[in-house]
Amino acid sequence: MATPARPTGIRGTGAQTRADAQRIALELFTTRGYEATSLREIAERLGVSKAALYYHFANKEDILRSLMAARGTEAGELLAWVRAELAGAGAPPRDLAERAVMRWVETVSVDKLRGIRFLLANPTLLRGEGSRAIGDGLEAAATLVAGPSPDPTRLLLIRMAFLSINAAVAAARGTALSDEQIVAAARESALALLVRLREPTA
Amino acid sequence: MATPARPTGIRGTGAQTRADAQRIALELFTTRGYEATSLREIAERLGVSKAALYYHFANKEDILRSLMAARGTEAGELLAWVRAELAGAGAPPRDLAERAVMRWVETVSVDKLRGIRFLLANPTLLRGEGSRAIGDGLEAAATLVAGPSPDPTRLLLIRMAFLSINAAVAAARGTALSDEQIVAAARESALALLVRLREPTA
Repeated sequence: MATPARPTGIRGTGAQTRADAQRIALELFTTRGYEATSLREIAERLGVSKAALYYHFANKEDILRSLMAARGTEAGELLAWVRAELAGAGAPPRDLAERAVMRWVETVSVDKLRGIRFLLANPTLLRGEGSRAIGDGLEAAATLVAGPSPDPTRLLLIRMAFLSINAAVAAARGTALSDEQIVAAARESALALLVRLREPTA
Repeated sequence: MATPARPTGIRGTGAQTRADAQRIALELFTTRGYEATSLREIAERLGVSKAALYYHFANKEDILRSLMAARGTEAGELLAWVRAELAGAGAPPRDLAERAVMRWVETVSVDKLRGIRFLLANPTLLRGEGSRAIGDGLEAAATLVAGPSPDPTRLLLIRMAFLSINAAVAAARGTALSDEQIVAAARESALALLVRLREPTA
């Protein structure tokens, strides 16, 4: 899902406009829905002309792709980290699952949380290319840390631990909980699953 | 979301046809998608005429409603059980959250699991009336067992425990895990969260 590179040499207000456009787009995509949001509205909320926005993004899909790519990069980095930890090791180190899950969950940025909320609010995009790249990275990481021929329940629990943030965001729907409270619950949940995974019965 | 009652007095093959139609519809809705499935296909797979199927269901939406109503009834029964447990008690009994969550998770029928998988495969229906009735019942149960003014993280963890099955089904996407393995992981996950909830820090 390689996205054609956008000009990255823009400095000052240009780079800021790009980042602001992504932030505002994500917010509108989440609250109003992706389909219902137009590039014009994003430009209006941003306080720039549509032409100025076009300089950064050819269309709405282009903004979406850039957002997905950012999350996909995070998943790719996690996978690269897991691979580096495994390099040279015969079997996965005992605490690798734990460290990998917490690495993913502890680094929940506000952007990551908003990205997940956006996908839950626009579920038809869940099967899109960008979303699949994130899922594929996480799945590969889960499979690697689970080790060879893991117990199926164990593998699924590891996957669930990685997806604690998603589960927390889904469970928080309709509540007035803050992002911080949702992240706190996601961490608690991941820790709880990891404790269970440490027990020989799980 | 009261569904107009269908004739329930049908006996023998009539009642069986109705149940078979629901089962086959759910299967097709999940594997092919709700939109892509027609009443004609359901009748064909069922081996009955379209007219025979019309006797039980006016249209595809009617089958969907009947499926949602069955799950909504289960959530309503859970809520009624929680209310009965609370009746007369000043504060929620200490182990109520635990018993309520396990009551919900332990009674995962194959139908319940398939219903969740169907909703995850057809996410646009997640905001439909029938789906909301299930969610509302579960949410009310979670709020009641959490007790008055619960810690927000605690409340969210209780909601997540109730939704362990949903999280397990979501995490199992793309794997070849059996329904039994998914249910086993959901129970493990619910138990892990409940252990954490028992600790004073959570």
